[in-house]
Amino acid sequence: MNTIKLRSMLEQFYLEDIGDGDLSSELLFPETVVGELTILAKVGGIFCGSKVIEEGMHVVDRQTVVNCFVEDGSPIEKGDVIATAKGSVQSLLKSERVILNLIQRMSAIATETRRVVEMIEGTGTKVCDTRKTMPGLRMLDKYAVRMGGGFNHRNGLFDAVMLKDNHLAFAGSLTQAVETVKVKLGHTVKIEVEIESVEQLQEAVAAKVDIIMFDNCTPDMIASWKGIVPDTIITEASGMITQDTIRAYAESGVDYISLGYLTHSVKALDMSAIVAINK
Amino acid sequence: MNTIKLRSMLEQFYLEDIGDGDLSSELLFPETVVGELTILAKVGGIFCGSKVIEEGMHVVDRQTVVNCFVEDGSPIEKGDVIATAKGSVQSLLKSERVILNLIQRMSAIATETRRVVEMIEGTGTKVCDTRKTMPGLRMLDKYAVRMGGGFNHRNGLFDAVMLKDNHLAFAGSLTQAVETVKVKLGHTVKIEVEIESVEQLQEAVAAKVDIIMFDNCTPDMIASWKGIVPDTIITEASGMITQDTIRAYAESGVDYISLGYLTHSVKALDMSAIVAINK
Amino acid sequence: MNTIKLRSMLEQFYLEDIGDGDLSSELLFPETVVGELTILAKVGGIFCGSKVIEEGMHVVDRQTVVNCFVEDGSPIEKGDVIATAKGSVQSLLKSERVILNLIQRMSAIATETRRVVEMIEGTGTKVCDTRKTMPGLRMLDKYAVRMGGGFNHRNGLFDAVMLKDNHLAFAGSLTQAVETVKVKLGHTVKIEVEIESVEQLQEAVAAKVDIIMFDNCTPDMIASWKGIVPDTIITEASGMITQDTIRAYAESGVDYISLGYLTHSVKALDMSAIVAINK
Amino acid sequence: MNTIKLRSMLEQFYLEDIGDGDLSSELLFPETVVGELTILAKVGGIFCGSKVIEEGMHVVDRQTVVNCFVEDGSPIEKGDVIATAKGSVQSLLKSERVILNLIQRMSAIATETRRVVEMIEGTGTKVCDTRKTMPGLRMLDKYAVRMGGGFNHRNGLFDAVMLKDNHLAFAGSLTQAVETVKVKLGHTVKIEVEIESVEQLQEAVAAKVDIIMFDNCTPDMIASWKGIVPDTIITEASGMITQDTIRAYAESGVDYISLGYLTHSVKALDMSAIVAINK
Amino acid sequence: MNTIKLRSMLEQFYLEDIGDGDLSSELLFPETVVGELTILAKVGGIFCGSKVIEEGMHVVDRQTVVNCFVEDGSPIEKGDVIATAKGSVQSLLKSERVILNLIQRMSAIATETRRVVEMIEGTGTKVCDTRKTMPGLRMLDKYAVRMGGGFNHRNGLFDAVMLKDNHLAFAGSLTQAVETVKVKLGHTVKIEVEIESVEQLQEAVAAKVDIIMFDNCTPDMIASWKGIVPDTIITEASGMITQDTIRAYAESGVDYISLGYLTHSVKALDMSAIVAINK
Amino acid sequence: MNTIKLRSMLEQFYLEDIGDGDLSSELLFPETVVGELTILAKVGGIFCGSKVIEEGMHVVDRQTVVNCFVEDGSPIEKGDVIATAKGSVQSLLKSERVILNLIQRMSAIATETRRVVEMIEGTGTKVCDTRKTMPGLRMLDKYAVRMGGGFNHRNGLFDAVMLKDNHLAFAGSLTQAVETVKVKLGHTVKIEVEIESVEQLQEAVAAKVDIIMFDNCTPDMIASWKGIVPDTIITEASGMITQDTIRAYAESGVDYISLGYLTHSVKALDMSAIVAINK
Repeated sequence: MNTIKLRSMLEQFYLEDIGDGDLSSELLFPETVVGELTILAKVGGIFCGSKVIEEGMHVVDRQTVVNCFVEDGSPIEKGDVIATAKGSVQSLLKSERVILNLIQRMSAIATETRRVVEMIEGTGTKVCDTRKTMPGLRMLDKYAVRMGGGFNHRNGLFDAVMLKDNHLAFAGSLTQAVETVKVKLGHTVKIEVEIESVEQLQEAVAAKVDIIMFDNCTPDMIASWKGIVPDTIITEASGMITQDTIRAYAESGVDYISLGYLTHSVKALDMSAIVAINK
Repeated sequence: MNTIKLRSMLEQFYLEDIGDGDLSSELLFPETVVGELTILAKVGGIFCGSKVIEEGMHVVDRQTVVNCFVEDGSPIEKGDVIATAKGSVQSLLKSERVILNLIQRMSAIATETRRVVEMIEGTGTKVCDTRKTMPGLRMLDKYAVRMGGGFNHRNGLFDAVMLKDNHLAFAGSLTQAVETVKVKLGHTVKIEVEIESVEQLQEAVAAKVDIIMFDNCTPDMIASWKGIVPDTIITEASGMITQDTIRAYAESGVDYISLGYLTHSVKALDMSAIVAINK
Repeated sequence: MNTIKLRSMLEQFYLEDIGDGDLSSELLFPETVVGELTILAKVGGIFCGSKVIEEGMHVVDRQTVVNCFVEDGSPIEKGDVIATAKGSVQSLLKSERVILNLIQRMSAIATETRRVVEMIEGTGTKVCDTRKTMPGLRMLDKYAVRMGGGFNHRNGLFDAVMLKDNHLAFAGSLTQAVETVKVKLGHTVKIEVEIESVEQLQEAVAAKVDIIMFDNCTPDMIASWKGIVPDTIITEASGMITQDTIRAYAESGVDYISLGYLTHSVKALDMSAIVAINK
Repeated sequence: MNTIKLRSMLEQFYLEDIGDGDLSSELLFPETVVGELTILAKVGGIFCGSKVIEEGMHVVDRQTVVNCFVEDGSPIEKGDVIATAKGSVQSLLKSERVILNLIQRMSAIATETRRVVEMIEGTGTKVCDTRKTMPGLRMLDKYAVRMGGGFNHRNGLFDAVMLKDNHLAFAGSLTQAVETVKVKLGHTVKIEVEIESVEQLQEAVAAKVDIIMFDNCTPDMIASWKGIVPDTIITEASGMITQDTIRAYAESGVDYISLGYLTHSVKALDMSAIVAINK
Repeated sequence: MNTIKLRSMLEQFYLEDIGDGDLSSELLFPETVVGELTILAKVGGIFCGSKVIEEGMHVVDRQTVVNCFVEDGSPIEKGDVIATAKGSVQSLLKSERVILNLIQRMSAIATETRRVVEMIEGTGTKVCDTRKTMPGLRMLDKYAVRMGGGFNHRNGLFDAVMLKDNHLAFAGSLTQAVETVKVKLGHTVKIEVEIESVEQLQEAVAAKVDIIMFDNCTPDMIASWKGIVPDTIITEASGMITQDTIRAYAESGVDYISLGYLTHSVKALDMSAIVAINK
Repeated sequence: MNTIKLRSMLEQFYLEDIGDGDLSSELLFPETVVGELTILAKVGGIFCGSKVIEEGMHVVDRQTVVNCFVEDGSPIEKGDVIATAKGSVQSLLKSERVILNLIQRMSAIATETRRVVEMIEGTGTKVCDTRKTMPGLRMLDKYAVRMGGGFNHRNGLFDAVMLKDNHLAFAGSLTQAVETVKVKLGHTVKIEVEIESVEQLQEAVAAKVDIIMFDNCTPDMIASWKGIVPDTIITEASGMITQDTIRAYAESGVDYISLGYLTHSVKALDMSAIVAINK
């Protein structure tokens, strides 16, 4: 994670929430009143977001002392104390909502990722994310997938080639599309191709792409086609994979299963923040 | 909605996704190749995000011609054409993911809000959001709630006073907290107070606050307490409200029910984008 | 006040003034030369701007040690030492002009506000600001009004509804305009309506708006109309109010008098900064 | 003026005022309702701000058609139509306040500058500004001084050397200070020195500085000292110059009189904006 | 290339050069004076920068009409007209320096890259860049390398793994380092390892890395070691490669030669801009 | 130098290089592993960039302890230790490339400037830069010229007037152009005029400009024309000056020689960074 970028994001997020000031707390608490904020788990899951807590508190007030007791990727139980922060009550109250909004999302992503990882345990297949992250939050969304035991697909349009139906159609053939790209592409970038038929699969293997994506294929299709793919090419399944079918996909022998819902449909993991005021 | 802000957000989101370029499309499509992108509904729901489609396409390429066929807040069915965009294929392919990520979220929020609104139809109670929006997306999240038929709670810490347990405890009493705030607060800002007991409720009524929030109260408690509150004070229920209990809450006579999950736990409404290339 | 925003503003202001460097001081003072800057009042008034001094000095140089001896909102006399700052002379000389420009404005606003507040003392009427603040400085302008004993009107177009002649004319009637707004507006937002006749006033009362603004009305008109307005609606007078007439307005029984000139026509409160160099 | 910078400033200013939206106008006016805004002079003076009107309107809405009928620096009378803008009523209502706040300030600065210029007409002395501009608005403040017939002093610490008492004291003498600077300074930058005695004046002349500032000197002192200064050195008077004494200063033969109050104490020039809605 | 990012860069660059205005041109040319700017090659080479010309002109003034006659990557001769721009003379004069500074650098990079590519023509070896680009200009620097016929190495620390001596030493062995990385790394990211000995080379081959970098090896070493590397692993030579030795390196059979000097030591390709004023 | 601006630049540069994270180092080094980075000179020259090292390291990680052993403008020999930094190895590895890219450029500029300064030693002529700096890096480029013993020409279009052929042609004559400018220009700004003939030179002298630039003139022309220029006007030679002719130009008696190549064609001064890991 890039903390320069994280701080910059948090500054924007706090401007959104605090605006020109926290009317309630600034009117009621003198700046000198101090206290302690405690972040608690209200349900169990996989925690993620320690850096958000630390940097978030410090963006609001450099004097706040933060302690995070859970490492990213570790399990939490209902009632667990995740972190505490001591400092000005005004600062604590200003900080909490943005932090909770972020870490509840990140922990939810990590938790759901871990759940899916466990569903396919023993198969050797890995789970990965997609570009279906929340705009502005990709760094955090993808970090959370890693902390849940998943893997990251490409970060954006800039760091891997992904040839889809449009690309292939315009080039005339998969073979031609890959050739066109290879003539110009740097050697540090991988080429992935979406295939939908055994003919395309054979072309992809012959073209020596780096990754073959089975797009909207059944586990049976993948299992039967897997033998065509040499060990040097990674395989990925994507599309129409549900909780009921994911184990079947994993057992098809595919290397990676990519799941958009891990980041596009997130049910926040419930946590709460309690502030105790020193008198 | 503020389109100056929307454009600025979209520029950030596209920098995140495109980085220094779209390797796949820039290597395969000459800039002069044009085509048409169609955004389709894959499931039914309430659409939201026409401005995101229009401004998003134009942030990437001012030449793209965009037509949106569905108004924000209108119902869509599976297969409906939501919008089309004609222009450079490179630009269309660069634009689609960020737009889909946003409008699938916004439409999901609008859809779920509408669903809840319909669950309590006829009761006179209204549904509203909270500050549990996704950091960086509050303007869009809250817009989607409105398009779904819900109402917006405060935008942030800066535009309404919300006195919670900490504020009341520090001030000594609810009465004292409200007094302290009223001495300094501008007359265009409302004061809301969370209450948990009938004693606090009576204090709140006497203090002539603008809004009383029944925090973690049962429908029965609210129904029995409602009579204490004069018409000039708005009531709101929050906390522990589920799909099973929401109708009971609405029938308690409370004016507003605020639901954090509308924006913190969003299951994307499925849509797809198809690009046809002009030959 | 939001210090994240304040620091961001100060960084912009110092980039404007310092550009690529302070030619004079960088050429004459080695960075190691230290000294003490003293900010003095050259005339009496109400001071405002302690956070600007502190954060401004630290934006330029985190090592500078700042002491502010006057609280925001407190009176100062000619010759009073407002603050001192110890550190690198280069940093002190780079810091002073931006800080003086800001605190002379803020103190002037606070001073004039206090003067007006005292002119209507005993009447129960309060003084408030408008949106006629200096673009880019609204947070500071409005803070200064509060420190002078005034109150803040809405922060912008986003946090309160203000229905003016255009809105009413387009809607067909005041009643219709309020109804249209109420159907969509969140419950945490107040509705203010400008009225110019007794008929409009009666409509506004019937429509149960939150605030009624008597626009360009005489004190006599307000006094005679005041009885129509129930206690639950706040009244505000605006327009054509001068120093000669303000007491009459206050005695009309209106709750708030809003004064644009407090922030749009500011005569800086004179202060000076003296730097002593340690040898 | 740099329009890239102006647009960037206006975007910030509109974010401050509009936030997430204009509640009143968005709720009442459909986006398709069009109208015409007219900006009128409510008092006479020197107008300044045509680019602010044009760019401001376009930052909010590129479709708005703007006509400005008065050139910057031209006189206006009460009732004059300064500009009109046709477009969406929502856009017109969102645009007007920021524009008025800026052009009322700019026109006030131009008007007051013109007034002072006329007070010393015929003397050959020129009026200039200082760095006592409003932070964030220096480009506009200094432009307005030029439009009023005044001249700009340096833009900031970066584009001219100004040696004041601290610099001279640390260097040991004015001569030594100038020497130290000249050894390193680029040849496109002028050196100005503040002098308070005839001895310092003689040193400054001998050191061949570009500009000599008579700081807090009487007109008599300047008149008697002027003969010491050769034609190749520009003279400037600053400090303690009032409306009563400015003509005397000008008649002392000094080349420039710098006046901080032109930009630090601005009484807005009253204007109004009226919107007519097309039915 | 990402034009959203390019425009944002150009806005920053013009703020740096224009500041609050172009004193010379604004004082001499009325805004209505139009003319034509012509960009000419003063020496031969490979041109690069058409988008910079187009977007740069439009950032300064949307009305300017730009024609670029040379495609990126095409050869130019002394005297060739590269582009013309018609519009306000003020705008043309404000635009030219930033554009020339950028396209002279980009063309120089493209020219030098082409020269090196031609030096090793026929060998099958390719030339690539490094992270030794000018901070803030990486997108343009790397684009220019591509236009010169070279290839891009990774864009930054985020899009490819590069294991150097420190990483290997800390992990205990190359094998261990690769294993540690592979456990967590996404499948779209390649792993490159720097090797300095045949033992490391054998480890790298066994670990099935994607790219092996021969760091500071002689052509003879590479030629003799090349046989150990299977076709599925790409090889790269880096360090101590000069114009005298580059052909030998290419003939060693290595796949890529990375050259830092292409972007860290650039001798601008001379061009000029001439403005003709319409009378 | 303005450190507020430097930090802001460095944040942008690190976002460019680090993106969402340093894959290699984050995967291999726990955050708690500490070490020491040493920056070494690989060739001799003039060092420049100590503030870049210090602020760069701290932008990445405030905990890193930096020691710089060489002052800007001091000579370095091959093998000299320029600076050390102790802290987290992750942070050290993230920091090094951006810092090296910048200080190698800055030191190269300082070194080449010093070399040229020494070539004309004893003549009294000074060397200066131009606006041909790398966009986004002007503050650093110009600082490096000063550290090499050169002088800075204007910072941009905003801080000095430079009248070139277009300006003169449009105005009708050099005399007219200077007059037009002088009527509006502030007294702290110098006027420079490019001249190409003795007639223009005589006009320039008569017009009392501040600086006369001999554009593309031979040393002989300058020497013969120099007598026409009084001591109060500075002279500058520019254009077509090579290493072979520079001494002749200096001996012509011109005051300044401006050299664009100092900043537009920079050959990086080689340095390396070595990290030792504490075990």
